[in-house]
Amino acid sequence: MHGFGREIVIDFEKCGGLIPVIAQDVNSGDVLMLAYMNVEALEQTLKTGKATYYSRSRKALWVKGETSGNEQEVREVLLDCDGDTLLLRVVQRGGAACHTGHASCFHRRVAEDGSLETVGVPLFDPKDVYGK
Amino acid sequence: MHGFGREIVIDFEKCGGLIPVIAQDVNSGDVLMLAYMNVEALEQTLKTGKATYYSRSRKALWVKGETSGNEQEVREVLLDCDGDTLLLRVVQRGGAACHTGHASCFHRRVAEDGSLETVGVPLFDPKDVYGK
Repeated sequence: MHGFGREIVIDFEKCGGLIPVIAQDVNSGDVLMLAYMNVEALEQTLKTGKATYYSRSRKALWVKGETSGNEQEVREVLLDCDGDTLLLRVVQRGGAACHTGHASCFHRRVAEDGSLETVGVPLFDPKDVYGK
Repeated sequence: MHGFGREIVIDFEKCGGLIPVIAQDVNSGDVLMLAYMNVEALEQTLKTGKATYYSRSRKALWVKGETSGNEQEVREVLLDCDGDTLLLRVVQRGGAACHTGHASCFHRRVAEDGSLETVGVPLFDPKDVYGK
């Protein structure tokens, strides 16, 4: 358990120093993505008001939208009842959180028979944003 | 990677056989909770239409609402872009997902100075539901 500030106890230990973080669009209510934070990422997010995660693949802090310009302005940070998950309510710049160009990373529906169906359409072409 | 059904590849391996699952109220849009599923929990959820998670503390399947009656009827299951997180859009029976009686498990706001503030009021008294 990590005592963050005076009163908060946020449990970073269940997931090896990381806490899962849900980002939700404060305007549409859409769940945009799930990412992870370490203590430093949370401190930076609270300080700057811009969602900053910890990239498990790159093993480094990751300011969301650094490359694409699609930053997340944090309006509210909420902690769950057992202190091991965060919810960020954000204004999503550019309207899309996903690197595929979809508004939400959750754009594939799982049917009962196990098949997948893409829902919604991308708002941008990733090639235009990431150059690949 | 676990091939679930014909086309789906859901990554249960990043988190030791479990995948994080966000539950969202399909009516209010509220993010209710984060829990985990193993393959069996997902199969049971898709088959029964009732959210079934894997309890990490009890190391067993957990039909949400089994004790409280506050079941989650699953309207939609969505998979994220990299296949390692699920989003359930649910009808929350009893109006509250949290064992504290709050509609959402995310009912504590984290201020910039690190203090916590409870938001919203409980919809039921846990003593009435769980008898303790």
